[in-house]
Amino acid sequence: RSYKIAVIPGDGIGNEVMPEGIRVLEKAARLFGFNVEQQWHDFAHCDYYLKHGRMMPEDWKDQIGKPDAIFFGAVGWPAKVPDHISLWQSLLQFRREYDQYVNLRPVRLMPGVPCPLAGRKPGDIDFWIVRENTEGEYSSVGGTMFPGTEREVVIQETVMTRVGVDRVLRYAFELANSRPNRHLTSATKSNGIAVTMPYWDARVEAMAANYPDVRWDKYHIDILTAQFVLNPDRFDVVVGSNLFGDILSDLGPACTGTIGIAPSGNINPDRTGPSLFEPVHGSAPDIAGQGIANPVGQIWSAAMMLEHLGETEAASAIVAAIERVLAEPSLRTRDLKGTADTGTCGKAVEEALG
Amino acid sequence: RSYKIAVIPGDGIGNEVMPEGIRVLEKAARLFGFNVEQQWHDFAHCDYYLKHGRMMPEDWKDQIGKPDAIFFGAVGWPAKVPDHISLWQSLLQFRREYDQYVNLRPVRLMPGVPCPLAGRKPGDIDFWIVRENTEGEYSSVGGTMFPGTEREVVIQETVMTRVGVDRVLRYAFELANSRPNRHLTSATKSNGIAVTMPYWDARVEAMAANYPDVRWDKYHIDILTAQFVLNPDRFDVVVGSNLFGDILSDLGPACTGTIGIAPSGNINPDRTGPSLFEPVHGSAPDIAGQGIANPVGQIWSAAMMLEHLGETEAASAIVAAIERVLAEPSLRTRDLKGTADTGTCGKAVEEALG
Ligand SMILES: CC(C)[C@H](C(=O)O)[C@@H](O)C(=O)O
Ligand SMILES: CC(C)[C@H](C(=O)O)[C@@H](O)C(=O)O
Repeated sequence: RSYKIAVIPGDGIGNEVMPEGIRVLEKAARLFGFNVEQQWHDFAHCDYYLKHGRMMPEDWKDQIGKPDAIFFGAVGWPAKVPDHISLWQSLLQFRREYDQYVNLRPVRLMPGVPCPLAGRKPGDIDFWIVRENTEGEYSSVGGTMFPGTEREVVIQETVMTRVGVDRVLRYAFELANSRPNRHLTSATKSNGIAVTMPYWDARVEAMAANYPDVRWDKYHIDILTAQFVLNPDRFDVVVGSNLFGDILSDLGPACTGTIGIAPSGNINPDRTGPSLFEPVHGSAPDIAGQGIANPVGQIWSAAMMLEHLGETEAASAIVAAIERVLAEPSLRTRDLKGTADTGTCGKAVEEALG
Repeated sequence: RSYKIAVIPGDGIGNEVMPEGIRVLEKAARLFGFNVEQQWHDFAHCDYYLKHGRMMPEDWKDQIGKPDAIFFGAVGWPAKVPDHISLWQSLLQFRREYDQYVNLRPVRLMPGVPCPLAGRKPGDIDFWIVRENTEGEYSSVGGTMFPGTEREVVIQETVMTRVGVDRVLRYAFELANSRPNRHLTSATKSNGIAVTMPYWDARVEAMAANYPDVRWDKYHIDILTAQFVLNPDRFDVVVGSNLFGDILSDLGPACTGTIGIAPSGNINPDRTGPSLFEPVHGSAPDIAGQGIANPVGQIWSAAMMLEHLGETEAASAIVAAIERVLAEPSLRTRDLKGTADTGTCGKAVEEALG
């Protein structure tokens, strides 16, 4: 088996954690007998923008070609390029252009990781967040009237489509249906956001009719964030709009110790284009260049990528290796109250792999 | 001194916690020598809707008249009336009609309250959330195209105005400037929400120029929720849009033990209309009628109301009485792992007052 992987480290600590992800990926390839053909891309970062006035070359789609997956670091450096420009011209564009309409993120308390929530043990917190990844609140549509005056009005559209909502809900219900607890929680805010969110609720209800074995409930996003802190053991699969999924998938990992270990898959379930795998954390300009970033989010993203490619055994082995390393305080990075630097932690996972 | 207070208990546990709020309010009046003239209103609840087809009478504004403040319980009972109808015809209408453009909510870890965050002590968590309360993501503007078909598209507007954004930012900066730490944090999401949020950021930056003594920073809402869990001691005044403020002001109180104790003021700082005080929690149909609701949110809201009316001494006395009661496990309600019912807890605060 051989896989073509497009590698895009991006900005900031993306460049520090990517080599660790690659290190573990290559080791897994040797151990499990598959081949990884890497194609690195030196765009989708802010220095590229400063040189070329855009985040990616005009023919970026041709340059990327048809890889089996994209392995992504992080992007954004607000002191160089405003975030909304750097993101909309890179990551957010990938998600749309490749129709990666599911953003899948695990929330799992790992053995040995110091948990900020009192009294929680591994096994207590173990669920998935399914986030809509192409529409909703993330829109570039809108504008300003009477700019610069007292009357200034700024309007932005939230857009939901039947197709867009139903397909991500179907994915979430399928996932819930495949898990022992068969429980799905929908994030809403239909009491305050009076047009799109009641629509979301109605589609959830309609989709639920197809999954009689799935127990489902809904929470308004405000109280749902509270429940993540107070009762994180309550969740199995949580589905939310682009914005709500974004919020929950930083909050969830924080409740399990750090967002530095959380991975994500930007998935095109129909495989009409490549899926993209990246850590949940950002480019963190404040700690870039110091070699202290946690590489586990990137490494775990490699495992999700392998899972997606069908290399299930290798994927599980990587997650098991991560668990062994995280259990050892001296191998953890600073965000987990450890002392290891990025490379030490990454090498430790490589070794733990076998 | 005499104050005219409009009392609106609303739905569900609103009816159970309101009498406790009133009990403490009346005791404070006796102790501190002012008078409270109550005008109770039997509308803005879902049974009213079931009878009259609307949440409030047509002449609700006349009926409420010109009180010095509104003391509100909670509203909503989705099994009777969809949330977006019940809320937009009551609470959300008050906020707009009375131009209560600031929603002010404390996040404070009280002595003795079990904290879900490991190792946090009273004093560690003590900040204010200032939420824009009239515009932004809470809009009733939008609609559906091609309803019921595969092409269905649902659009909702987020609307920010210069006037609306600046006035709440000014309030937040003033508040920060009056506190010893002079620190303001702005919630944004300008990397993903590309029109309104960069505008919000720009207005924060412009307003900050007027407050050279205030140290300010901004976080994207996703990582900000994570920071509430990981570093809640970092905050002093947090300002956010209608939606972001809503989320943060449930999450913050959850991080300090329960949303059952959190109060809020829906404030019209220009005093062109009455301000409204209510607990942060909702009507909680699931526990309504059992007498187990925590009355502290309602009681603390009475304190905020008295503060607003200039009765600072009485306000502080109530908060001190709450602190004494919360320190005693047998006087706490179930959400705080206590055994007291709503009335027992309320009476305890009344007694602790003197
Ligand atoms: C009930 C709901 C509409 C309301 C809001 O979202 O504003 C509530 O959550 C609050 O925080 O006051
Ligand atoms: C960087 C940002 C645009 C992005 C998002 O909001 O989607 C990130 O927070 C994420 O969660 O992948």
